[in-house]
Amino acid sequence: MNEVIAAPRDAKPVAFKTDSEIANAAMKRPIQEIGAKLGIDAGDLLPYGHDKAKLSQRFINSVQDRPNGKLVLVTAINPTPAGEGKTTTTVGLGDGLNAIGKTACVCIREASLGPNFGMKGGAAGGGYAQVIPMEDMNLHFTGDFHAITSAHNLLSAMIDNHIYWGNEQDIDLRRVVWRRVVDMNDRALRQITCSLGGVANGFPRETGFDITVASEVMAILCLSRDLEDLQHRLGEMIVAYRRDKSPVYCRDIKADGAMTVLLKDAMQPNLVQTLENNPAFVHGGPFANIAHGCNSVIATTTALKLADYVVTEAGFGADLGAEKFFDIKCRKAGIAPDVAVIVATVRALKMNGGVAKADLGPENVAAVKKGLVNLGRHIANVKSFGVPVIVAINHFVSDTDAEVQAVQDYARQNGVEAILCKHWADGSQGTLDLARKVVEIAEKGAAEFAPLYPDEMPLFAKIETIAKRIYHADEVIADSKIRAQLKDWEEQGYGHLPICMAKTQYSFTTDPTRRGAPTGHSVPIREVRLAAGAGFIVAICGEVMTMPGLPRTPAAEVIGLNPSGEVQGLF
Amino acid sequence: MNEVIAAPRDAKPVAFKTDSEIANAAMKRPIQEIGAKLGIDAGDLLPYGHDKAKLSQRFINSVQDRPNGKLVLVTAINPTPAGEGKTTTTVGLGDGLNAIGKTACVCIREASLGPNFGMKGGAAGGGYAQVIPMEDMNLHFTGDFHAITSAHNLLSAMIDNHIYWGNEQDIDLRRVVWRRVVDMNDRALRQITCSLGGVANGFPRETGFDITVASEVMAILCLSRDLEDLQHRLGEMIVAYRRDKSPVYCRDIKADGAMTVLLKDAMQPNLVQTLENNPAFVHGGPFANIAHGCNSVIATTTALKLADYVVTEAGFGADLGAEKFFDIKCRKAGIAPDVAVIVATVRALKMNGGVAKADLGPENVAAVKKGLVNLGRHIANVKSFGVPVIVAINHFVSDTDAEVQAVQDYARQNGVEAILCKHWADGSQGTLDLARKVVEIAEKGAAEFAPLYPDEMPLFAKIETIAKRIYHADEVIADSKIRAQLKDWEEQGYGHLPICMAKTQYSFTTDPTRRGAPTGHSVPIREVRLAAGAGFIVAICGEVMTMPGLPRTPAAEVIGLNPSGEVQGLF
Repeated sequence: MNEVIAAPRDAKPVAFKTDSEIANAAMKRPIQEIGAKLGIDAGDLLPYGHDKAKLSQRFINSVQDRPNGKLVLVTAINPTPAGEGKTTTTVGLGDGLNAIGKTACVCIREASLGPNFGMKGGAAGGGYAQVIPMEDMNLHFTGDFHAITSAHNLLSAMIDNHIYWGNEQDIDLRRVVWRRVVDMNDRALRQITCSLGGVANGFPRETGFDITVASEVMAILCLSRDLEDLQHRLGEMIVAYRRDKSPVYCRDIKADGAMTVLLKDAMQPNLVQTLENNPAFVHGGPFANIAHGCNSVIATTTALKLADYVVTEAGFGADLGAEKFFDIKCRKAGIAPDVAVIVATVRALKMNGGVAKADLGPENVAAVKKGLVNLGRHIANVKSFGVPVIVAINHFVSDTDAEVQAVQDYARQNGVEAILCKHWADGSQGTLDLARKVVEIAEKGAAEFAPLYPDEMPLFAKIETIAKRIYHADEVIADSKIRAQLKDWEEQGYGHLPICMAKTQYSFTTDPTRRGAPTGHSVPIREVRLAAGAGFIVAICGEVMTMPGLPRTPAAEVIGLNPSGEVQGLF
Repeated sequence: MNEVIAAPRDAKPVAFKTDSEIANAAMKRPIQEIGAKLGIDAGDLLPYGHDKAKLSQRFINSVQDRPNGKLVLVTAINPTPAGEGKTTTTVGLGDGLNAIGKTACVCIREASLGPNFGMKGGAAGGGYAQVIPMEDMNLHFTGDFHAITSAHNLLSAMIDNHIYWGNEQDIDLRRVVWRRVVDMNDRALRQITCSLGGVANGFPRETGFDITVASEVMAILCLSRDLEDLQHRLGEMIVAYRRDKSPVYCRDIKADGAMTVLLKDAMQPNLVQTLENNPAFVHGGPFANIAHGCNSVIATTTALKLADYVVTEAGFGADLGAEKFFDIKCRKAGIAPDVAVIVATVRALKMNGGVAKADLGPENVAAVKKGLVNLGRHIANVKSFGVPVIVAINHFVSDTDAEVQAVQDYARQNGVEAILCKHWADGSQGTLDLARKVVEIAEKGAAEFAPLYPDEMPLFAKIETIAKRIYHADEVIADSKIRAQLKDWEEQGYGHLPICMAKTQYSFTTDPTRRGAPTGHSVPIREVRLAAGAGFIVAICGEVMTMPGLPRTPAAEVIGLNPSGEVQGLF
């Protein structure tokens, strides 16, 4: 769920502080001071407490004619249980760029509330490279996800209400595809029958709840340019099908206007700060499987008007996250990255080289070398989008010089530089080299970004292109029903949409156990879904869980206030 | 649902402005300035935008040793479709007290989000006696209700999760009494079966959703002194019964700590302002039928430390609202009202005198006189609590002098004064007389407040006492099962709890069509419910709807943003 992987605690000496100790000891500055660093007047900041604020639409409108700053994408090798530290590196690089005199702004995703009651919530970053206030970011924050939940469920209620009062649209009760959402891990709601209890309660039917981050409303909020675009996209969502199988849109239910009103504040980017009091936008948080997994377009595009450098990240590894960032977010927002940073750790490379997590301790240069093929393929893939690459080695205290050297040598052989980064321990002082390299490359203007495939390519060919060029698979397997569905959508005018792959994050293949850089595999497409409002087609290559459950002993059992009124157990 | 009844539009000349026009034209002051009027430092206000703020707990703690100001309850005759204007009078009186040189603070309830998408949302007050920002108060406001929804549903998820992982508490699947909530009018969720879909989704069972304001968590938040008290009460809630019929408490599920964390900001009172820039706390909003229908104890008790006068209101008419305010809120909070204002309108008195709504136009002194028995009984009832009474005649432009005079004469015969109030048209200038009278009576210190019944009275006798002394019924009818249930609760240690009557608001009887001051009726108790955390026993005398539905043409269909980005259709 939460892809923020904190630096593993078993790797640090006892004297080190935990993420929450560091975050709680931070010297926060009033949010107006942070805004001032980006030239935002206090009057254009809608404060939420003293350390969070939303940016006014008036201000966003006022900066549209400014030139864009440089855009830096932070992505990673395939994640492993060893931890990569993508968010940590995003934050550390942002601080590093500020430390070398650039105005830099970090843009990351908001965390979902529900999962924090299952497993402990995560920091946004880790060590001395974090975004704060951590506690609020793990709780209600500025209410964006609650607003999305409300907007989503208003539409749900209006659909059943429409059916109740005569069903003028002739909705097929069996084909209502719009479910309900809650920002809670609640497996009991995955599948329900509703409208039971007699005439007054409507027409019984099967349905269910997803977690809020899985809502198409979330994806739309994160891809919309402004409120007008938001409302248009909401209206385009398909909520059901009629008895004649024609789609019923959200706008047929007349919910798009009220949903937009519910979302008008949620649409405004949230400004917070890093531990070093540098600006960070934390806004939006769509799933990285059935959605594109990036923070909001409006936050990124606004930050580009305010800062010399915008450092942002994409979900999962580069095969999923960077590809979607390029082919969905950049394509739709009309933005182009100037440089991409691929985060790798010695430990994760060892795991990609076949070492078990328990055996990561001792030096093992051979395993590092074996695992480097995973990094190599991501480097080649990202370069294929025309984006210059730098590798950031997120340093762990257990890494040996020989292991680090192996990564750096390999990167150089692949035509890129791998820079050792110690932001987890040293904050911005640990990323000065990375920051300088980012600036050097970005200012060269070498990027020639282009998406992987053109809009006009047929949908199935788009899936094949991603599978072959990015996953290096031999073939895509899909039965005739799926192919026919894609053809139907092309005929209905959805053929221009990009593809959003829902595949395991742990492998280039659809088998999470196959690390490294496998070849010769097939990509089976189990299901395709149309997100007509968000504007992409989801190709599902495995099981997708849109409503998590709680574990046997949920974190919630130990979350509480201590005698001095401080939150404990949350992170 | 929303008991705020705006002054009816058919009664005003065309030249008058609507509530929303007035509210939108208001000259709002920064919330820090409003706080300063109560001696609150800007650092102790947690801002939500520029016109809303929460009060820090640190500040609340710091004022506990101060003496209390005077407490004024605004209540009303039985509501009719003609409109009484209880909130409007509460706000108008607050402004009037400030206008005559007192520091006065208004304490009212927050509105529920969901119902606004069915019928148009209400103003908090009306005309020139309103609390603003109206739009935010009809939308997410400061997120309190979202926090309550999250806390409630976390417990729901943890109960089903407990069952899923082995059901150590031996919960009887058929006797899970804790439902789920959503702040939306969604009849399809009233009754559902959950946990369908096979082994991974748990054990199927019947359940349903209520609207958030019906949650016991809402009642608890509104009755708790502080966060410690809140957590204790949450822990005391009964969520299910075991196979041996013993109760399972929230604390058995270990949800109380995490729920408290989710509610820690929601527990802090929200400061906003009236149209005349006077302070108003708008905090909490429990149902007035299955709960006690008052704003939060923490807002009222804090306001009493900060202002000379605190003007607050209770839900429905005085038979329900004032009785619960006295017997539940005042009893639990240890506060005592100095004076009560009973709001009446000529129009509503005419309806109590038998006139249909369509015939309210022409002068009809006889009907006013006939309807005054309703007012008379409320006066006597409120006096029986030892609280001095003033009648406020909320003036409508259609009222004639003779009609007003009839009310004033009748009041005088009943030993109280009835004062004509024109706050709807004139703001504070319309309530100067009322304000002076309130001060005169309050400063006399004539109040000798005592609840209607002592804690130690048996539960059924408490119900009989309310029915006979307040409703003037002859008898209470309850079958042996209900009497046995009350006995059981007494044996389990709940005998000291007060009663929360769930009865129609439109009549002293249980028949909503019986206006005036009926006698000789019976009060049938259909069901009793234990709110062990909130600390009251609900006696239900009719149908209680805890999840409203949307109408055929929901207001949501016309809610939207206009081309200049302003919300339209919401109120």
